Amino acid sequence: MPRFRHHVFICENLRPEDDPRGSCGAKGSASIRQAFKSELKARNLKGVVRANASGCLDACAHGPSVVVYPEGVWYGGVTPADVPEIVESHLVGGRPVERLRIREYAALTPALSRGEREPKA
Amino acid sequence: MPRFRHHVFICENLRPEDDPRGSCGAKGSASIRQAFKSELKARNLKGVVRANASGCLDACAHGPSVVVYPEGVWYGGVTPADVPEIVESHLVGGRPVERLRIREYAALTPALSRGEREPKA
Repeated sequence: MPRFRHHVFICENLRPEDDPRGSCGAKGSASIRQAFKSELKARNLKGVVRANASGCLDACAHGPSVVVYPEGVWYGGVTPADVPEIVESHLVGGRPVERLRIREYAALTPALSRGEREPKA
Repeated sequence: MPRFRHHVFICENLRPEDDPRGSCGAKGSASIRQAFKSELKARNLKGVVRANASGCLDACAHGPSVVVYPEGVWYGGVTPADVPEIVESHLVGGRPVERLRIREYAALTPALSRGEREPKA
């Protein structure tokens, strides 16, 4: 097993309120990370799956944005309420939550690596 | 090709000066990210390889710490002077810089994914 089975990066970049690009931090991404931490702890996944703050992931238009490695699955428009489903389906079950994936990036990653299953259509 | 061929996360976590754990941010990691950005731009790798700030990567004892995905290669004790070698050898040539790898994590990842070569002994 690698250092972390999954490493989840949550963009917490914060721009000034008048910046037209907006920012994930201004959309409440710190509470998304907190939701991941709580959910992972409740499932005894601390040290196995890590939820990490990150700077700008260059996916501002889709924010709040989250990327999960090593598989490189990108999620957009994530809310704290989505987190239990991401943990249950993806981080525990190996099935990314399709409705939250950033479509243009999903198209770039047709197959998941390391034997993870693509979800059934 | 996925969204980024390599996604480099540089820990920029900053703790108070009297915190016994120290922090990567206090060891100058912002200048490491700047070195990556300059080197990648000079090689026309902007948008292909991304150098990203991150919060605490939970590798404080090895800091400043850096992790490269999707391959999950961890580097410790990185300085800005090390960056051109990481870019040239690893991010362009596919050969991680062994002398900088965090040994205990490297042992957890015996083989690199996605067809990347292990360096010759």
